[in-house]
Amino acid sequence: MSNEQRPVWHKRVTEAISADELAEREALWVPLTEEVRELVSTAILSEVDEHAVALARQHIRAAQEILGTKVDTGSFGMHVNDEGLAWNWGNAATGQKNAVAPPLCQVPIADGVRYEADFGAGYEGPPGCLHGGWIALILDHASGRAAHLEGNGPTFTGTLTIRYLQPTRLGPAVAHAWVETRTANKFVVRCTLSTEDGVTAESEGVFVLARWARKPQED
Amino acid sequence: MSNEQRPVWHKRVTEAISADELAEREALWVPLTEEVRELVSTAILSEVDEHAVALARQHIRAAQEILGTKVDTGSFGMHVNDEGLAWNWGNAATGQKNAVAPPLCQVPIADGVRYEADFGAGYEGPPGCLHGGWIALILDHASGRAAHLEGNGPTFTGTLTIRYLQPTRLGPAVAHAWVETRTANKFVVRCTLSTEDGVTAESEGVFVLARWARKPQED
Repeated sequence: MSNEQRPVWHKRVTEAISADELAEREALWVPLTEEVRELVSTAILSEVDEHAVALARQHIRAAQEILGTKVDTGSFGMHVNDEGLAWNWGNAATGQKNAVAPPLCQVPIADGVRYEADFGAGYEGPPGCLHGGWIALILDHASGRAAHLEGNGPTFTGTLTIRYLQPTRLGPAVAHAWVETRTANKFVVRCTLSTEDGVTAESEGVFVLARWARKPQED
Repeated sequence: MSNEQRPVWHKRVTEAISADELAEREALWVPLTEEVRELVSTAILSEVDEHAVALARQHIRAAQEILGTKVDTGSFGMHVNDEGLAWNWGNAATGQKNAVAPPLCQVPIADGVRYEADFGAGYEGPPGCLHGGWIALILDHASGRAAHLEGNGPTFTGTLTIRYLQPTRLGPAVAHAWVETRTANKFVVRCTLSTEDGVTAESEGVFVLARWARKPQED
């Protein structure tokens, strides 16, 4: 990637779009993203011959060309409207437009945050198991979200310590994160990852409230 | 995913394929994977209208149907031949057939291991920055590989502690991991992640040699 193409840090795009129009746009893109996710998984598992590969590539390039006729540059960033809505559909863990994201789906609970996802072929590390790095990603994302909700603003990861307790088999998994202690703008967050085999990994992290989101007296 | 479809743990597939045939197969699939990666990124950045989205989806589904006419189930797992070659092309960090992988590319160095990757729109967390979980993934993967090389066999992550030092902007990044100390089958591995801004994150991890890869006297 050349320097000119480097994504803009802290990219923020303001759009004049109503909540209803945004919901329509989301409904337009989510099915495409799901189909790209399926394609990623099928490409891993496919054993078709070279003629089929060549034909599939023609279609992939055709889709690429169509979608590429009007594109933003760099990365999605954070989009906002003047009603206070914000959407980061490019997020690598949860993004509605990002086929790298499993996606992690947040489920409302009273105590902290819960994320669910179904990890298929695209997330493999040790054979048949979730990549240890994806385990870290889930724990980080869920913990950061728990701190965000507690602090009422975005947080950054300071440190994260992960204990891998047993292999995490591919398939459905659940993360549960909660703030254990808070001092001023710093949050100690614990998180577990579980499958039907029980808790497979756990973490403890220190998350720090973004400076601009702090109240003056707490700075 | 139903229980019957759950990927097989420790999946290992033995194939009667020569090294030359394997190289041909790799050359067949890598360009397709790269095109799927491009498609993932373009889907995030695309701003085309609903007619174009519908047309692109037709092509994506056509590619899906072609690749899906002959597929393995579950996940890729570890493939081996009787010449001692092993390939895990589904790996979420490095896999030749996996468009979720950036991919991380290993570069030979004398001291430990070095991985390079160029992180585009698919890996975003904070706007314009690499997702903190992907930072963890890279540190975990590079550290595990360093332990693998030192121990001459696969290792599992025991614990991993990550310090996030400054934002990691999207774009080119380099990981460098090295074994600091070794006691029997346990390795303490340090790793740094750097961009043109300098070191952005570092980790210390304990990695444990797979039981079956240990020498009897070390067990």
